[in-house]
Amino acid sequence: MPHVLVTRRVHFCAAHKLTRKEWTEEKNREVFGDCAHPNWHGHNYELDVTVEGEIDRETGYVLDLKRLQHVVRHSVIDDLDHRNLNLDVKWVEHTIPTTENLVVAIWDRIRPRLPEGIDLKRLVLRETPQNWAEYEGG
Amino acid sequence: MPHVLVTRRVHFCAAHKLTRKEWTEEKNREVFGDCAHPNWHGHNYELDVTVEGEIDRETGYVLDLKRLQHVVRHSVIDDLDHRNLNLDVKWVEHTIPTTENLVVAIWDRIRPRLPEGIDLKRLVLRETPQNWAEYEGG
Amino acid sequence: MPHVLVTRRVHFCAAHKLTRKEWTEEKNREVFGDCAHPNWHGHNYELDVTVEGEIDRETGYVLDLKRLQHVVRHSVIDDLDHRNLNLDVKWVEHTIPTTENLVVAIWDRIRPRLPEGIDLKRLVLRETPQNWAEYEGG
Amino acid sequence: MPHVLVTRRVHFCAAHKLTRKEWTEEKNREVFGDCAHPNWHGHNYELDVTVEGEIDRETGYVLDLKRLQHVVRHSVIDDLDHRNLNLDVKWVEHTIPTTENLVVAIWDRIRPRLPEGIDLKRLVLRETPQNWAEYEGG
Amino acid sequence: MPHVLVTRRVHFCAAHKLTRKEWTEEKNREVFGDCAHPNWHGHNYELDVTVEGEIDRETGYVLDLKRLQHVVRHSVIDDLDHRNLNLDVKWVEHTIPTTENLVVAIWDRIRPRLPEGIDLKRLVLRETPQNWAEYEGG
Amino acid sequence: MPHVLVTRRVHFCAAHKLTRKEWTEEKNREVFGDCAHPNWHGHNYELDVTVEGEIDRETGYVLDLKRLQHVVRHSVIDDLDHRNLNLDVKWVEHTIPTTENLVVAIWDRIRPRLPEGIDLKRLVLRETPQNWAEYEGG
Repeated sequence: MPHVLVTRRVHFCAAHKLTRKEWTEEKNREVFGDCAHPNWHGHNYELDVTVEGEIDRETGYVLDLKRLQHVVRHSVIDDLDHRNLNLDVKWVEHTIPTTENLVVAIWDRIRPRLPEGIDLKRLVLRETPQNWAEYEGG
Repeated sequence: MPHVLVTRRVHFCAAHKLTRKEWTEEKNREVFGDCAHPNWHGHNYELDVTVEGEIDRETGYVLDLKRLQHVVRHSVIDDLDHRNLNLDVKWVEHTIPTTENLVVAIWDRIRPRLPEGIDLKRLVLRETPQNWAEYEGG
Repeated sequence: MPHVLVTRRVHFCAAHKLTRKEWTEEKNREVFGDCAHPNWHGHNYELDVTVEGEIDRETGYVLDLKRLQHVVRHSVIDDLDHRNLNLDVKWVEHTIPTTENLVVAIWDRIRPRLPEGIDLKRLVLRETPQNWAEYEGG
Repeated sequence: MPHVLVTRRVHFCAAHKLTRKEWTEEKNREVFGDCAHPNWHGHNYELDVTVEGEIDRETGYVLDLKRLQHVVRHSVIDDLDHRNLNLDVKWVEHTIPTTENLVVAIWDRIRPRLPEGIDLKRLVLRETPQNWAEYEGG
Repeated sequence: MPHVLVTRRVHFCAAHKLTRKEWTEEKNREVFGDCAHPNWHGHNYELDVTVEGEIDRETGYVLDLKRLQHVVRHSVIDDLDHRNLNLDVKWVEHTIPTTENLVVAIWDRIRPRLPEGIDLKRLVLRETPQNWAEYEGG
Repeated sequence: MPHVLVTRRVHFCAAHKLTRKEWTEEKNREVFGDCAHPNWHGHNYELDVTVEGEIDRETGYVLDLKRLQHVVRHSVIDDLDHRNLNLDVKWVEHTIPTTENLVVAIWDRIRPRLPEGIDLKRLVLRETPQNWAEYEGG
């Protein structure tokens, strides 16, 4: 049976700021600009989760997208939605929550929870409609 | 000359939470749900500013949209973008920053700054692609 | 307190066809074109529900959109989503399910279920991104 | 039968520039900025044509949107698409092709060609996703 | 000359249901959920057809997209648009019309009909804006 | 540190036509259709610039997108926006400005201006929402 990629798009709304604690406010402002604003700002994030696998002969599915959505919701969205990415999320707290660091951290959450035979192929995480990060596990 | 409406769409990213200080955290959680999360969350807001006026016979413009954008940026966006709507914005601080309260507060900022002959007709403020508030000054 | 409009966007996927039972297949094909195809076709419908009311002084809400969504889901979406609009929906079955007839039928479902002080102001129902119907109760 | 608004969205791609012939290039540049560039620029225009009428008891249509599209194509799109709005369009040539002037000129083309009982209610013409003009015939 | 990918996006509206004839209605409901509803439901499908080839030195085209559209319309869209994917389409009738099975079946229709020197590179088929399948022929 | 792709989307509005000077108007019309219209037409172009690199341990960035935007604006957008692609742009003037030729010319402008350690991975250039070209440097 053919190998196909299937994608589920999900959303979350979160606050964050980009700062290194060991840097001064001036240094953070210089490197991160407005994203270093001390009182936080936030985004409507959009996440596309793409998995790859063989089409199941019986169901015609690579993977029931409701099952994929269940994995993504419980391992990622429940922790991030309506939260502060710097303060509230254990599995992000050791990194600056840039889109790049987030997409890698999300990869590490979803990948081990996928059923056998299903590969996590690609994540796309959009911070705004003009800016996004994409990760294929490399 | 005909009367036409012209619109300029702008964006800002901000953090907020929905809470009444005089209520307990439980009461706030009960009324506002996840939006009351104490550590903030945030959104990519989208604002459509619509003005009405007569077409100028010489320029064919109701209003040069660069001029409208200048008014909106200086009176609204510079104060809201990459800010915390509960903590950083003087002209919002006396209200809970719901989309409804925000759109009215933005109206009161833009309206007195428009050139003569130009009426503020409608504001649409989207918190997410699924939720928005609209105000016509009523 | 100011009067503001708030909107909640919802979606449903449904099958339908446009035919009058008392007409021949030829006559139906002539009037409705491909939309009269006997074996059905379908759409991803998008519905924007707009209500109007005074901002509540305590909550800053005109209406909690989760409450509006609850009304819309239980009175409309649960009946329409993943259904056949000609065969499965009691409150549509006496009409041809054009976008125009659907938007009026949805209006009659939502309006009596809104809380006191909240007016149903406008419904927009999109059958495709290029075609839609809009109803204000007139 | 209820009165409903129905909309058909159409597109055209065109070149234009904003200049007054009796002004110098400097004056045009000062008033219209980059839009006065002598060698033209262009846009993907998006036009939403909204008509209002009573739902027809037999068909459930206010107006067959294929019929509306036929009117819009023949009276407007065929003249504008892949054309130069300053040089090629007789019914625009006496005006500067701003979005405001275009939307009024398009109104005057479509309105007299609609069937009896159908009112042209609203035109929205978008030059970019951030800028548009709206006309209701006022 | 460089190798470039070019894409044409097309749309079709269709009804379908996900069921295996040899399974009971209960079993189908259990596996496919609402998608197994016996009276059908439907979608606005969006299909992105991407081909790869060398830029032609004379025309600057990899392939005239009008020619690609002609192939896609005649081999795919004419059969699917305003049709029932379970009942009306010979080249789909042996499979459950999941997005995965559809995208592979569409691949097999388009690929042999492309001109020499043009490779079918990728198909993306969206059932809703949140769910899609992608196939590269593997 | 992981390798991640980051993308910045930018826009420009431009006029163009597709013609070979050594061909007659009839031949150009035959090959390029309406795109050969002598008086030009135009588009709102959308360009997605994707670069790849290692996440910087200190900043969490692959590349500050403001820096990428600066490169793209100065090497590409300033030359193309509100311009005529056939007449005004030195680095395009030797080619017919098809989307294919443009995306390759833009690649050659951006690539040598990226900082060390950052690879230009992919460009997507959309002429309309239905048509685009994609280049990976091959």
